[in-house]
Amino acid sequence: MTNFAGLARLRNVIKQVTSRAEAEGDTDSQEFVDFCHMQLQELISCDDWLPEEFAAAHPDHYQQYLLHCDPLERFSLISFVWGPGQKTPIHNHETWGLIGMLRGSEISQAYEVADEGGLVPGRHEVLNPGDIAFVSPEAGDIHEVINAFEDQVSISIHLYGANIGVVERSVYEPASGRSRPFVSGYASALTPNIWGLSA
Amino acid sequence: MTNFAGLARLRNVIKQVTSRAEAEGDTDSQEFVDFCHMQLQELISCDDWLPEEFAAAHPDHYQQYLLHCDPLERFSLISFVWGPGQKTPIHNHETWGLIGMLRGSEISQAYEVADEGGLVPGRHEVLNPGDIAFVSPEAGDIHEVINAFEDQVSISIHLYGANIGVVERSVYEPASGRSRPFVSGYASALTPNIWGLSA
Ligand SMILES: [Fe+3]
Ligand SMILES: [Fe+3]
Ligand SMILES: [Mg+2]
Repeated sequence: MTNFAGLARLRNVIKQVTSRAEAEGDTDSQEFVDFCHMQLQELISCDDWLPEEFAAAHPDHYQQYLLHCDPLERFSLISFVWGPGQKTPIHNHETWGLIGMLRGSEISQAYEVADEGGLVPGRHEVLNPGDIAFVSPEAGDIHEVINAFEDQVSISIHLYGANIGVVERSVYEPASGRSRPFVSGYASALTPNIWGLSA
Repeated sequence: MTNFAGLARLRNVIKQVTSRAEAEGDTDSQEFVDFCHMQLQELISCDDWLPEEFAAAHPDHYQQYLLHCDPLERFSLISFVWGPGQKTPIHNHETWGLIGMLRGSEISQAYEVADEGGLVPGRHEVLNPGDIAFVSPEAGDIHEVINAFEDQVSISIHLYGANIGVVERSVYEPASGRSRPFVSGYASALTPNIWGLSA
């Protein structure tokens, strides 16, 4: 059943971030990222708004559902859904990203490229509902994300400083650190209609 | 099947209109409406891009599918789908609107409120693919729209100067001209994802 109050919260966050992007101009500034952090915190403070279609796990692999893309592609908001035990490949982002835990729990394992070319494990973060992790080319851009549960779905809401589905990025082989090009796309040809009051 | 080149055209129109709205500020200006007219003309010049979900007729009544709403609700783009013989009630808009014919044919019958309170028929327009009609509180805001075909679906693409689905407007009784409040909403809880390169 559609939760209109929940959708209104999602809509409000999108309006706030859009207004700020228009006013700020530079959507890579610390001020803009801080504002997005605050807005994402508000959004994930309550798990009552994500429409079912965008919370559905796939049996074989994680899903990334676009919830909203800024029309000028300055930012995008995505629902990541991990089935039991699922994880991402090791990947980078080429833009800043905020990872807000909505439901369940996940592990973000950072990596750094060693001088010899291999990957060295870095920061290991366990995210629980309400927690937010940050990635960026400056702060550390390579990680893998793993559902912390072997027996339940976990969902996080990500806000990126680009239309992340079309960004040309990389995935990495753990042993060699070798990378190959990666464009994630999106899992669905549909996005939620958050602009109506009723169906 | 998804037509990616078609979706790119839709995406491009939305980007153009958004950029112009940000630059222009006043989205009720003649300049902005003229720009939107040009963009809508481009969009309806070819009928290869509308995803099937947003072209589906309902057996009992016309459908209005949101294709895109500007996050700051300065404009919205909607697919109107009329089944054979279907029509709207007589209604107004409370904002400017451009009606671009994509498929089939429709009749826009304008009305004016007479001094005695009744409705007097005004301009009668037959729209064919590529044609654009205009409504606004200044130019004439009351009309009904009728599928010109009794045996086929007609579809037009509308661009409005507001989030039209939530605007408080009026529908009118033909004989008395009496009005009652009307908020149209949207026919679907989903919108097309036009931001990915692939599914
Ligand atoms: Fe990531
Ligand atoms: Fe109308
Ligand atoms: Mg307006």
